[in-house]
Amino acid sequence: MEFSSKLLENAVNEMSQLPGIGKRTALRLVLHLLRQPEERAFQLSYAIQKVRAEVNFCKSCNNISDTELCEICANPNRHNGVICVVEDIRDVMAIENTGSFRGLYHVLGGKISPMDGIGPQDLKIQSLVEKVKSGETKELIFAMSPTMEGDTTNFYIFRQLDGLDVKTSTIARGISAGNELEYADEITLGRSIIDRIPFVASLKS
Amino acid sequence: MEFSSKLLENAVNEMSQLPGIGKRTALRLVLHLLRQPEERAFQLSYAIQKVRAEVNFCKSCNNISDTELCEICANPNRHNGVICVVEDIRDVMAIENTGSFRGLYHVLGGKISPMDGIGPQDLKIQSLVEKVKSGETKELIFAMSPTMEGDTTNFYIFRQLDGLDVKTSTIARGISAGNELEYADEITLGRSIIDRIPFVASLKS
Repeated sequence: MEFSSKLLENAVNEMSQLPGIGKRTALRLVLHLLRQPEERAFQLSYAIQKVRAEVNFCKSCNNISDTELCEICANPNRHNGVICVVEDIRDVMAIENTGSFRGLYHVLGGKISPMDGIGPQDLKIQSLVEKVKSGETKELIFAMSPTMEGDTTNFYIFRQLDGLDVKTSTIARGISAGNELEYADEITLGRSIIDRIPFVASLKS
Repeated sequence: MEFSSKLLENAVNEMSQLPGIGKRTALRLVLHLLRQPEERAFQLSYAIQKVRAEVNFCKSCNNISDTELCEICANPNRHNGVICVVEDIRDVMAIENTGSFRGLYHVLGGKISPMDGIGPQDLKIQSLVEKVKSGETKELIFAMSPTMEGDTTNFYIFRQLDGLDVKTSTIARGISAGNELEYADEITLGRSIIDRIPFVASLKS
């Protein structure tokens, strides 16, 4: 792409570094900003700078937070005996939206993925193990995505907990609400039969 | 969406004002920036601010440029008797890429679109008419997208040129290279027959 302006070229190049944004989309976004009042572009620029410079992670669970302890960890009404282990803060938001979990979270910040060069030392696993060792945790719920990397991460953490008195569980895998059985994959359908639950229990939620 | 941090919420809100970027995508982009080294986010922030604050439009053709006259207008080898009228600078880039045009451009900055509240006074039409009145222009090529709005804009400009000694043309409409005839729409196929060209001429390019 040939640009008539270096400033424009630079902005498009920076914008196209974002995931899923190619050069053409980046150009469209930058041209949109040029058509908007100056304040709009400055507000975006300022918000990006500010969030990157001042963002804070909860010192207990590693969730993004404006305070030292995030709202969830600081809430005395949450059960601190159950910790739900998730990949990133979007998972915290998703689970919070369901309203079915009243314990605490632990955000790993990713999953073990040798293909992407991410090993256990790049994730907040050590602090999780320390937390469990300190004794208050009765149950860890692994809520990673059911992929190869998610399973590997779960298993790695499970091994680190060897000898510690903590219950571990993983979120149920099965047929999603509203899905047709015939389109479910074999692994999921198979697991949903092996892990079947008493019908009376299924009426509860 | 419930955010655990005001800074994060603010950045996501600003990002999701961009066209085609919803809240979820915005969150993904902001979390990506948080995982990157600080410089990356600052460079993006700075590039956006700088392009908006310092961007310059060519005083002759309204193309984005770092100098007072853009490279095309300032190039003595371009024919200043032919002006190609386009909607925005992406069209200039697209036509320049073909290498088949050696004249100058005039960037309108949009097209007449009452639905979006864009009238002729919002576009750089007056300066185009003045340019033609000043006498050097022999031909105007309308290169707007072949839509209702594009056609309206072409026609509006055409009426403004009443009584002026200037040739007007529009880019050819027809079947695109590589397209199957049976999938072409009726209007395009019909026009391509009415506007047929001598076979010998078609061999030239």
